[in-house]
Amino acid sequence: MRVAFQGEIGAYSEEAVRGLYPDAEIVPHPEFEDVFEAVETGSCERAVVPIENSLHGSVHRNYDLLREHTLQIVAEAQLRIRHQLLVIPGTTVDDLTAVHSHPQALGQCRDFLRSHLKHARVVPAYDTAGSARDIARDGDHRHAAIASRRAAEEYGLEILAENIESNHENYTRFLALAHPDDSTHRGLAPSASAGAPKTSILYAQAENVPGGLFKSLAVFALRDIDLYKIESRPLVGSPGKYIFYLDLAGSGDDEQVRNALRHLDEVAASVSILGTYAEGPIMGT
Amino acid sequence: MRVAFQGEIGAYSEEAVRGLYPDAEIVPHPEFEDVFEAVETGSCERAVVPIENSLHGSVHRNYDLLREHTLQIVAEAQLRIRHQLLVIPGTTVDDLTAVHSHPQALGQCRDFLRSHLKHARVVPAYDTAGSARDIARDGDHRHAAIASRRAAEEYGLEILAENIESNHENYTRFLALAHPDDSTHRGLAPSASAGAPKTSILYAQAENVPGGLFKSLAVFALRDIDLYKIESRPLVGSPGKYIFYLDLAGSGDDEQVRNALRHLDEVAASVSILGTYAEGPIMGT
Repeated sequence: MRVAFQGEIGAYSEEAVRGLYPDAEIVPHPEFEDVFEAVETGSCERAVVPIENSLHGSVHRNYDLLREHTLQIVAEAQLRIRHQLLVIPGTTVDDLTAVHSHPQALGQCRDFLRSHLKHARVVPAYDTAGSARDIARDGDHRHAAIASRRAAEEYGLEILAENIESNHENYTRFLALAHPDDSTHRGLAPSASAGAPKTSILYAQAENVPGGLFKSLAVFALRDIDLYKIESRPLVGSPGKYIFYLDLAGSGDDEQVRNALRHLDEVAASVSILGTYAEGPIMGT
Repeated sequence: MRVAFQGEIGAYSEEAVRGLYPDAEIVPHPEFEDVFEAVETGSCERAVVPIENSLHGSVHRNYDLLREHTLQIVAEAQLRIRHQLLVIPGTTVDDLTAVHSHPQALGQCRDFLRSHLKHARVVPAYDTAGSARDIARDGDHRHAAIASRRAAEEYGLEILAENIESNHENYTRFLALAHPDDSTHRGLAPSASAGAPKTSILYAQAENVPGGLFKSLAVFALRDIDLYKIESRPLVGSPGKYIFYLDLAGSGDDEQVRNALRHLDEVAASVSILGTYAEGPIMGT
């Protein structure tokens, strides 16, 4: 199986792909559009994309791509994001004059950098894995990168300090996507996906939220269907118009869920069913 | 009045500050923590911080800081984010060999760069305003920055191409914050804030969402109180535990709103009232 993801080898997304599909051939792509298209055109069987981060919120871009494409969600996983200080083997803290990484990663390791690497420059870079690759390529003992454990393995770097992020509650949720005509995912469950079934939907409301939102949630509450996620996304410039992201407990094949979704169709302007999948594992802990 | 914001002069946040408080003294700070502390300690009277972006979602970091500090929201504004190609005056497209900016801005201008600047390198930088400042300082006609119109003015650069972002639905919502003991904001309304009153709250739920979320929203629906925003934020690793962000129509002084919030206290584990303020203008259009 070929699995598409956005980014470089050694990126956190690659860890998510390996966790979900350990035996897959991993295919990096420069942009999220390319990842969706890879599955749509059949050059890959799966795509794995980040959909929300516990510190930085929902990835609206990927919700938009889910709306624009017809791919189905077939699995999910939460990846704990842990940052490592990577150096050319044999380097000590005193050798270092610069630390390279993505601005978000540098920010998340601010406390560590302040207390242990005050003397080093902080150099923002395009991505974490790319910083690690460049450090390895240049072989300069004065430079370190902040990136994943996977990047250390990939580029032959040493972990000089591990788990250096200040906030340990940093998780990214990833979704695995398949072509709607691909029925293999029903048999081909990803590893460690023994979780309860959940279904993700997206719906639009043309009227104001008051009654509207309450009525749309009533279709689930009246049938004792649990919700895992609800998020309104305003269409700025169109006052009173919203899109809602909703994750609910149960499979799209359950009678109660089917009834609820039919009922939702009556009260919402449009409903998209993004897929049913097993509640995913927490990886990287 | 002194207004604190995070970033550099010429950053999009500075545009939001100028829109909300045209006559204020603008005080840049390196980190969001510093911005909150500036108002808490009295070195500034207001803070202006981004709280959500239409492409990138809620800024959870600032919701967390709102929970940890006691500042009150006193105003809001939506800023349309428009990217400009900034150069040393007299530069032409053919002179350019590199374009510098924050990775998000570079990504948002990808289509423009591909069709008009295929020959130029794309150089990721820590922020948009900082790229503009560096281009101006170095005075090299081969380098351009992508940043705001305000950055062009501040650093004496020329706009070679305007509004070069692919997705024009890019808005950031900013909140203005004041010390809870500061009552001047009731008289000192920011410019153009003739909007209807709204109130932001944040509440935690210890039980599972099903009945819980529905009951918590019922306290508003039963009193015909409109909702502008609802977002669940899962506490990863604590299954079934959520925080909710909610914006509702009406003032915290309205009897119906007070009744609803008292009712919410009965069904939620904890409730924080973040402030009542006028629905804000859309700026930069």
